[in-house]
Amino acid sequence: MALLEDLQWRHATKAYDPSKKVSDADLHKIIEAARLAPTSSGLQPFKVIVVKNAAIREQLIPGALNPEVMRDCSHVLVFAAWDTYTEERIDKVYDLTTDERGLPRGRFSSYTDKLKQIFAAQNEEQHFGHSARQSYIALGMALAQAAELRIDSTPAEGFNNKLVDEVLGLKEQGLKSVCLLYVGYADQQNDWLATMKKVRIPLTDFVINFD
Amino acid sequence: MALLEDLQWRHATKAYDPSKKVSDADLHKIIEAARLAPTSSGLQPFKVIVVKNAAIREQLIPGALNPEVMRDCSHVLVFAAWDTYTEERIDKVYDLTTDERGLPRGRFSSYTDKLKQIFAAQNEEQHFGHSARQSYIALGMALAQAAELRIDSTPAEGFNNKLVDEVLGLKEQGLKSVCLLYVGYADQQNDWLATMKKVRIPLTDFVINFD
Repeated sequence: MALLEDLQWRHATKAYDPSKKVSDADLHKIIEAARLAPTSSGLQPFKVIVVKNAAIREQLIPGALNPEVMRDCSHVLVFAAWDTYTEERIDKVYDLTTDERGLPRGRFSSYTDKLKQIFAAQNEEQHFGHSARQSYIALGMALAQAAELRIDSTPAEGFNNKLVDEVLGLKEQGLKSVCLLYVGYADQQNDWLATMKKVRIPLTDFVINFD
Repeated sequence: MALLEDLQWRHATKAYDPSKKVSDADLHKIIEAARLAPTSSGLQPFKVIVVKNAAIREQLIPGALNPEVMRDCSHVLVFAAWDTYTEERIDKVYDLTTDERGLPRGRFSSYTDKLKQIFAAQNEEQHFGHSARQSYIALGMALAQAAELRIDSTPAEGFNNKLVDEVLGLKEQGLKSVCLLYVGYADQQNDWLATMKKVRIPLTDFVINFD
């Protein structure tokens, strides 16, 4: 299917059928789309936490804006970004890159030295602002992939970040939660948004042309 | 084509053939993918500025990390996010939504009242941090659409935001530049990244599972 048709098809699902689960193969594709997303300097400064476990989910529910969605969807994907950029983290990614490409380590050091300088001049809030943005590219890819598979999904910022970070032990991993993506299959009877027209800002208000 | 194949195909193109231009029809699809991207509360707090004009581009080149890419690509897309969330801006989007759905204006006022409260408690830096994130979902969709069409592209944060904002008059529109997407057709001879292996963090380091 073409991406534009997939994006027209999808909507933020408001109710899920708890009896229907996303297959492992499909879930893998959704994760893979997030993993392949491009990021600034290729750093991929985030991880995806996949929560299927019902007991863990019960602990997250009090912090969810849509508790029934958290409970009934097939899998909860938590996008969590690096709390800070460090020299070690940057080197680890670039060592992987050079190793995979059969290049000597340090091959990109003139570039990574500049990167390290830029981040050294920033505070942790700026670091997280930057890493969180990158995770939104991956969030978009994951939901586009779900739509291609005709799997319902709901991107969500409405949750208690502190609770999610604590329950999932993200601080210990140097991560902070950014956004959620619920995936599964809609409960057609109760998904009130399903029948409403998709509305987007008209092209004339969305684009400014310098021809 | 499947999204995963498109994402495997693409890379951040490092040199463009200035003689090859993206057609209007294809450009429209790329913009449309960005326009259809989901955003927090459906606010779509950003615009896409499309710069084809060579004279304008000349003014932007001194601020570009890759000036030859800025010069030689077919179109420069600038993703620019709202500098702040205001009640008027929120109401304008929700009035469009209710009008398009044939619902009375104010139908979602209990929700938008909460939104306004949340944003009223934040400063402009927090507003822009939030709006900028949303634009990254659209950036991702645009580059996925370009890849589906086998159009080369380069997402870029490396540019002088202040210069771009000034040249394009973004402040007057209540916008601030966030990122660029160069699109066009690669100069195969000089696109040094084209032949290098795509490297991503291994799945085992990218995902944390709570089964």
